[in-house]
Amino acid sequence: MGKVPRILSWRNMLVLSLAVNFSLVLRILNGTDGRNSSYVSIWPVVSTSLDRTVYDNKWPVISTTASESSSLSSASCNYNETQEDDDRIVNLKLGDPTVYERYWREMGHMTTMVIPGWQSLSYFSDNNNDICWFLEPELAKEIVRVHKVVGNAVTKDRYIVVGTGSTQLYQAALYALSPHDDSGPINVISASPYYCSYPLITDCLKSGLYRWGGDAKTYKEEGPYIELVTSPNNPDGFLREPVVNRSEGILIHDLAYYWPQYTPITSIADHDVMLFTASKSTGHAGMRIGWALVKDKETAKKMTEYIELNTIGVSKISQLRVAKVLKAVSDSCGNETSKSFFEHSYDAMSERWKLLKQASKTSKGFTVPDFASERCNFLGKVFRPQPAFAWLKCEEGIVDCEKFLRERKNILTKSGKYFGDDLSYVRVSMLDTDSTFNIFLHRISSSFNSTL
Amino acid sequence: MGKVPRILSWRNMLVLSLAVNFSLVLRILNGTDGRNSSYVSIWPVVSTSLDRTVYDNKWPVISTTASESSSLSSASCNYNETQEDDDRIVNLKLGDPTVYERYWREMGHMTTMVIPGWQSLSYFSDNNNDICWFLEPELAKEIVRVHKVVGNAVTKDRYIVVGTGSTQLYQAALYALSPHDDSGPINVISASPYYCSYPLITDCLKSGLYRWGGDAKTYKEEGPYIELVTSPNNPDGFLREPVVNRSEGILIHDLAYYWPQYTPITSIADHDVMLFTASKSTGHAGMRIGWALVKDKETAKKMTEYIELNTIGVSKISQLRVAKVLKAVSDSCGNETSKSFFEHSYDAMSERWKLLKQASKTSKGFTVPDFASERCNFLGKVFRPQPAFAWLKCEEGIVDCEKFLRERKNILTKSGKYFGDDLSYVRVSMLDTDSTFNIFLHRISSSFNSTL
Repeated sequence: MGKVPRILSWRNMLVLSLAVNFSLVLRILNGTDGRNSSYVSIWPVVSTSLDRTVYDNKWPVISTTASESSSLSSASCNYNETQEDDDRIVNLKLGDPTVYERYWREMGHMTTMVIPGWQSLSYFSDNNNDICWFLEPELAKEIVRVHKVVGNAVTKDRYIVVGTGSTQLYQAALYALSPHDDSGPINVISASPYYCSYPLITDCLKSGLYRWGGDAKTYKEEGPYIELVTSPNNPDGFLREPVVNRSEGILIHDLAYYWPQYTPITSIADHDVMLFTASKSTGHAGMRIGWALVKDKETAKKMTEYIELNTIGVSKISQLRVAKVLKAVSDSCGNETSKSFFEHSYDAMSERWKLLKQASKTSKGFTVPDFASERCNFLGKVFRPQPAFAWLKCEEGIVDCEKFLRERKNILTKSGKYFGDDLSYVRVSMLDTDSTFNIFLHRISSSFNSTL
Repeated sequence: MGKVPRILSWRNMLVLSLAVNFSLVLRILNGTDGRNSSYVSIWPVVSTSLDRTVYDNKWPVISTTASESSSLSSASCNYNETQEDDDRIVNLKLGDPTVYERYWREMGHMTTMVIPGWQSLSYFSDNNNDICWFLEPELAKEIVRVHKVVGNAVTKDRYIVVGTGSTQLYQAALYALSPHDDSGPINVISASPYYCSYPLITDCLKSGLYRWGGDAKTYKEEGPYIELVTSPNNPDGFLREPVVNRSEGILIHDLAYYWPQYTPITSIADHDVMLFTASKSTGHAGMRIGWALVKDKETAKKMTEYIELNTIGVSKISQLRVAKVLKAVSDSCGNETSKSFFEHSYDAMSERWKLLKQASKTSKGFTVPDFASERCNFLGKVFRPQPAFAWLKCEEGIVDCEKFLRERKNILTKSGKYFGDDLSYVRVSMLDTDSTFNIFLHRISSSFNSTL
């Protein structure tokens, strides 16, 4: 008993000291230090990693070290000056969304999370949710909010199903929408160029419920079918509608890229099954969180059943993380004194597309799609789509564009053949780091002469 | 420029203040406060949640509020005194491992994590891992370490594949081990009583690669097959060996429960494909993290391919969380002055099994399996298995045990029929909260007379 007063004393000191921290943190966060608060490290454990030098560009092309207050929007380029190591392989095959790292490094303190060791032990997230028991209520709330803020999808009277990325939700939707009787596998189709993973995922287990049915543009079979409508489309970035339009068609809308940094938000999407993902909306691919907005209760239940069988739910900690990120995104949209997340990311994509189009004109060795301008209801301005991928076509008689870029430019891309299209096309990620994008830009700006 | 000194000044004060915190925290953690360090809240943000009152039992049966220094091991019971609401439905169908919440609430500060907003944006975890590119190196390190510490599985020359729970890894193993030629689906079998989800998961997509082949004990078909060996077994807790033993057999060992709180660790498991999960080893089911130890490189590659197609990897944040939890577990095993995680959880399971056996003797309405004692190489003592589930058999002429418990006792369990066994059996989770376990115990101690 004699030790109690001493314990209390140490603890009181700790509390007092923490209170001092808190007041200092608040002071810095509130901007009383006279600086933009976007780059303050408040957590001692991560302070060294937040050091700006870690994120300085290796390439002096797009500057991220301009004036601090506007560094997120001050990208500018003079790629002819770039000096680089031509042997370094640049991998732009996948859409790894590291372009967003810059924003989250500067704004990341808004989404810093502290997770105690006992949190999220149980499988269950919400005993009151009779559809998706593993959906964190906080995530559900922020999903509804961000769609309302952006105006890109209807959430009223929709069921939310969370998945380990939208890839899992795609499979959940196939499971839910395929007939489970003995009628044999239903055809799953999409207009080419279609997302290259669709055929692989659909056929990987040789399912008796569904099978890949190929290009929707040439689809002639009778009977029920599932058509995938990816809008904006991966790989080419165009907004899409279904192409078969028969009464027996079941639609899945993959709206992973229907966000204002990629395309003008022209209407509130209102479809039976709509898939979204944190990977492409906020850049948090490593969290593996996607969500489906589903009109029909039984479909939502069946999708939940698939995820239960496949992975017994979805990481709770990832859900809470994405909830916090979405909250920060929505909050940023309501702030009239500074740019929102979407304005920042719009600027980054806009700059990259401007540079790519400029390189296309200079080089004449390749072309990129030409998009029409439309008015974005969210950003309140007219602009052309600036997709997450460039659907690049080699010119100058180059037959195999992927091979040419790989062998002559040390650039890895995904060949058009995987998208149900021509070898002269490749898909190039526009979401990589500034450094990688700059090398890519430098290399494709030089000669495309080839005998390949 | 004039503002810089002031900024530095606030920041310096913050650093100074944090240093004071740190020293106080260290002081408390090192035990200079004279108390057991297991219940010190060092993170201000979680301190209220760590309040012991939050975790007090609703039921006065197993006391978790005994002397603080030994509260984790002081469980004792007098279930005849329990007063309860008989209408409350007690759900023990699933193995939700909330029994571990008590430990992690008290020890959780060891595993508190701070996650900055920019962390884990990329899909990739380890560019140097040419097998499983989405495996966090820190998790791989801690998986190897905990197996070495416990001595329950060989890790040398094994490839680690991480999954969204071991459920996904089971499917990855089926994908990897099934022939992908036109030989038709391979039979997947397991000796009854087998894990009830195996048939459902195996057949849910009507795969052309594999199909559920039923009870291994009666399996007669020629040709290759995959046999699942769950050891200790879910639902009955017995250690298992393969039962078919033909040269064309391919084995998957599900070792989710091969940990010293459930069964004596009698040897170092050394099989081709071994599956483990955080859900049952440490209780972190909500993280959805499992891992496979795989002998053959090509199998590990194919398993990775499946997870890539199914969910494009595994939540990085969950992996980092589990790495930290496993580290805390391994660290606790090296601490000679206090009980390890496994000793604590062994005690909890031991107490529950003692009470259940006592109730079985008193009631005579049901029986539970009778296990032989064996020496545990890790705990250094001889004991009987005390499984995560009780494979409970109704006596007294009750034909449908699940129905009886549901209708007469308001206890939800999983019927023996789902495990390829008799209706007189049910599987009951032994991993729920103290409160739920106590109600269960109280109810099954009363009369089992029934005409059902």
